[in-house]
Order: sequence, then C-alpha cells, then structure tokens
Amino acid sequence: MDSIIGTSEQILHALYMIGIVAEAVTAALAAGRRSMDWMGVAMLGPVTALGGGAVRDVLLGHHPLSWVEHPSYLLITAGAALATIAVARHVYHLRKIFLFLDAVGLVVFTVIGCNVAIALGLPVVIVIASGMITGCAGGVLRDILCADIPLLFRAELYATVAILTGVLYVGGQWVGLAHDISIALAMIAGLALRILALRFGWSMPKFVYTHTLH
Amino acid sequence: MDSIIGTSEQILHALYMIGIVAEAVTAALAAGRRSMDWMGVAMLGPVTALGGGAVRDVLLGHHPLSWVEHPSYLLITAGAALATIAVARHVYHLRKIFLFLDAVGLVVFTVIGCNVAIALGLPVVIVIASGMITGCAGGVLRDILCADIPLLFRAELYATVAILTGVLYVGGQWVGLAHDISIALAMIAGLALRILALRFGWSMPKFVYTHTLH
Amino acid sequence: MDSIIGTSEQILHALYMIGIVAEAVTAALAAGRRSMDWMGVAMLGPVTALGGGAVRDVLLGHHPLSWVEHPSYLLITAGAALATIAVARHVYHLRKIFLFLDAVGLVVFTVIGCNVAIALGLPVVIVIASGMITGCAGGVLRDILCADIPLLFRAELYATVAILTGVLYVGGQWVGLAHDISIALAMIAGLALRILALRFGWSMPKFVYTHTLH
Repeated sequence: MDSIIGTSEQILHALYMIGIVAEAVTAALAAGRRSMDWMGVAMLGPVTALGGGAVRDVLLGHHPLSWVEHPSYLLITAGAALATIAVARHVYHLRKIFLFLDAVGLVVFTVIGCNVAIALGLPVVIVIASGMITGCAGGVLRDILCADIPLLFRAELYATVAILTGVLYVGGQWVGLAHDISIALAMIAGLALRILALRFGWSMPKFVYTHTLH
Repeated sequence: MDSIIGTSEQILHALYMIGIVAEAVTAALAAGRRSMDWMGVAMLGPVTALGGGAVRDVLLGHHPLSWVEHPSYLLITAGAALATIAVARHVYHLRKIFLFLDAVGLVVFTVIGCNVAIALGLPVVIVIASGMITGCAGGVLRDILCADIPLLFRAELYATVAILTGVLYVGGQWVGLAHDISIALAMIAGLALRILALRFGWSMPKFVYTHTLH
Repeated sequence: MDSIIGTSEQILHALYMIGIVAEAVTAALAAGRRSMDWMGVAMLGPVTALGGGAVRDVLLGHHPLSWVEHPSYLLITAGAALATIAVARHVYHLRKIFLFLDAVGLVVFTVIGCNVAIALGLPVVIVIASGMITGCAGGVLRDILCADIPLLFRAELYATVAILTGVLYVGGQWVGLAHDISIALAMIAGLALRILALRFGWSMPKFVYTHTLH
C-alpha cells in the first residue's frame, strides 16, 4: 500500500514539475505580448508558476512556501521562461501541446492545493477553495502584473475546472473510493472539461451591467 | 456587564454580516460593468467582502483568517454576488440602500480591524492602520482585479471615514468612555461623514503633477 | 569588533531611513501623475516604501513586519509623501538627488533583505531572492496600484541592480571578506550600475511576441 501511495505521489510530483514549466512558458509568452524585457520575463515565469501555491500558503499560514523549501523551483521556472524567448517561434507551433500541459498543471495544482488543506485538517469548503486558489491564483497574479483584468474572471472555464476537480477529488474519497482512484478520476474529468472547453469555445455566461451605483 | 458586551458583540456581528453581503453586491455590480462571467462575479464578491480582513490578518500574522474559520462566509458572499445577477435591475432602484449598507460595512469592518490589533497588544498607530486596512483593502483588491486605479486613491472620503472611525474609537476609550459607547460614537460619526460625503460630493483635494522624474 | 558591526548597522539603518523617505517621495510624484487625492498620496507613500519588506516578510513568515514593530515608519513615509505635495516643484529641480537617494534605497533594501533571509538560515538562492523582493516589490505594488505594468518588468536595470548587489554581498562573504567590506562593496557596485544605467539609458533587451496561444 505504501509503495502505491509512494508511486502516486511520485507521479503527482512529476506532473507538478511539468505543470510549473508549462505555466512559466505561457507566462513568458504573455510577457512577450507586452514587450517586457528579459528580466521581466525571468520574473513573470516564477510568479505565475509558483504564485498560486504561494497565495494559498500565505492565506493558510502554511510555511515554508514550496519555493522557499525548494529553491530549485525558482531557478527552473525562471530558466523555462528565459528559454521561451529563444524558442518562441517553435512554441507557437507546439501551442496545442502547451495548452494541454497548462491544463495538466491546473488539475495537478488543484489536487495538491486540496491535499495541503486536508493535511491542515480544514473543512471541505476550504479544501476546495484551497485547490482552486492553488490552480488559479498564479494566472491572476500574471494578469495583474500585465495590468489586465484576470482572464479567469472574463473567459474560459478555468476556475470551473478547478472546482470540478476539487469536488470530484473530495467527493470520491467521501464515497469511499481509494485515494489514488479519486485523484485519477478528478484529474481526468477536470482535464477533459478543460480540453472540451478550449476545443468548443465553451464559456460561462457573462454578467453585463451598465449603471453606476452613484 | 458581560451580557452587555455580549449584546454589543452580537450587534457588531450582525452588522458585519450585513456589511459583507453589501460589499459582495457592490463587487458584483463592478464585475458586471466589466462584463465578467458568472464565475468572475462569484469570485469578486468574496475577494472584495473578505479581502480587507484577509490582508490585515496576513500582514499581522493573525491566523486562521476569518473565512478559513467560518467557510460559510465564502458561500454567503459568493451567493450574494451571484444573486445580484438576477436582481441587478432592482439593485439599481435600491442603490441608496446599498450605498448606505456599504457605508455600514466600512465602519463595522474598521471597528473589527481595530479590535483585532488591540487584542494582539499592538500600538495605537497600528490599531488605526489595522482598522483602515480592514475597512478599505477589500475595495482596493476589487479595483486591482478590475485593472483600475483604486477608487480609494482617487475619490470620496472612504479612507478618511475609516481613519475618523478608528481615531474616535481608540480616542473614546482613551478618555475613559465605556467600550460600547466608544464603538457607537465612532461608528455613528464615521457613517455620518460617509453619508454627507456621498450626499454633497465631498472629496479630498487632488495632487496633480505632470513632470516625470527622468 | 562589536563596535564596528554596531557602526555598520547604524549606517545601514540611517541609509534605510533615507531610502524609505526617497521612495515615499517618488511614490507621491507617481500619485500626482495620476491625479490621486491627498489621501491616496498619503497611502501610496508607505505602501511603496515599506511594501518590499512587507512582501518579503509575508512570504517568509517573518513576523512582526518592520512597520508593525516601528509604527513611526508609517508616519514618516506618509508624512514624506504628503510633504512632497507642497514641495513638488522643488523636487523636480532636485530630481537627480532623489533618483540617487532612490538608488541608495534600492541597494540598502536589498542588503537588509539578504540579512533577513540569512538570519532565518535560508539557502543562498532564497537569500538573493529575499534581497531582490525587498528592493523591488515596493515599486511593483506602487505600479499595480497605479494600474500600470510594473516599470520593473519593462525598463531600467532595477532588478538587475538588486541581483548584482545580493550576489556580491553573499559572494563577498563566501570568499572570506569581512562582513562590512562585503556590504560596502556590494552596495557601491550596485549603486554604480544603477547610476550608469540611468546616465546612459542602459536597459535589458526586450522580448516581443505577437502571437496569441489560442
């Protein structure tokens, strides 16, 4: 049993590393669209890739933060962002792969965020919120630093994917599924929703309001 | 004596619940003015309503945050924001009531923020700063997520109301007034200033500077 | 030996006070360029001057924050920002002095940030990151509150100066230089790079990318 949990944690960790690299790459492209300089690129990568976990840990008082404990994460994400400058043209041709890896990052970050809150003994609403913050807050920080309204608030089912993943993961364990089965099920369902949303342009209805309050 | 303090705390708590709902509603309208989607509305409500207390608690190292301890606050503020979509037209006709309840929220949040710093034994400048951050930082987060310069920095006597409320609350206790009297006095004065500022369009003078430094 | 370290710490503290005042002044001018009101000016000063250290302390779980322990810092930086309104015309004529003092602030904040991480026993990558965050994050908060893409990400060698200062400070101690010599060397080199970058308009190459990912 231990070895199975160990294996699933190793897979989760490997997917986490893929996820932070994919997020750093997409952050570098966002930086390039605003003509940031190389230092800006090198900073926006780690902020985007590691920012979701950082916001979660700061809100939950969960120290040390993962990149403080593993400084290599800072170097890997800054390096991935800088490397993107050199290979940007090829990234465009590989964009479907990167969007897929970014989606993998979203569901992995969500599951990891849920796990942190579960380990802290927090109630289920906070477990799901913790997963959502971990999955989504990095992209919100990226958009704030690009002086944009967060994409998360305007389009795509990004946050919805995080909530679905969190609910299925927690719900799977609640109905008695094995830990690994719950994780796999939640991640596959979240990934499927994200890919279908990208493929068919699914989005939430918008709320349009034109009055001012005073 | 205990029962009186208990009563004043119950009133403060009831006003707090009214305040977070009112702030969630005004946040939903701000989201609507930027055509955010329903998920964006559901997230901007809690961030605005609970963000001031969260910023205060993170800065003061005061854990757990209120919404981590009371996850229902997350659900109530997200629900209030979503409900606003359905009733937005009526909210416009009720806008004076909402501006009033938003002002109630401002002074209640300020008093609660002062109380947190007092309970931590912090000096008086930090007590007033804590009140101001609790009252105002949620709206600053809302405006950052809307990619706007915070309204707080540009117009209205919002922060001034928080400072006045904090100073009167702390000052009232310092000159020997009963705790409840200080709270009531500070909140009524802050509320009066806010309503007069809205009614007569009072604002701080602006600092206009057109040079660049280099 | 004690008295020498004591003297160097006193110099560092004096330079820190100069640095926070200079940053509050430049923040007030940024507020003036956005026509913020006096309260906005009084708030943007402390956020900019003390925000770098606050972000560092929140990320590292290092409490209490410096301005919570020394509330006078809040009053000094708010006062410096407000005073700038009165003397703004003269600040323009003194702009070279202020840019110099702002650069002094950058290298002093960086060294202080490194010291905080060293005292917490953190690895060298985090020591340098801590210095950079302390030196740069206040300006990032200022630009976010002005709804701008942070200057740090777009122009000037600001973050590069912080990294150089941090690397030389840590490296100097690693090769066996005395503590004071390392500090002096790192600060002089960082200051020289910043002044040369301002004088000759040095900047990082930009990354320009025009595609969207999907």
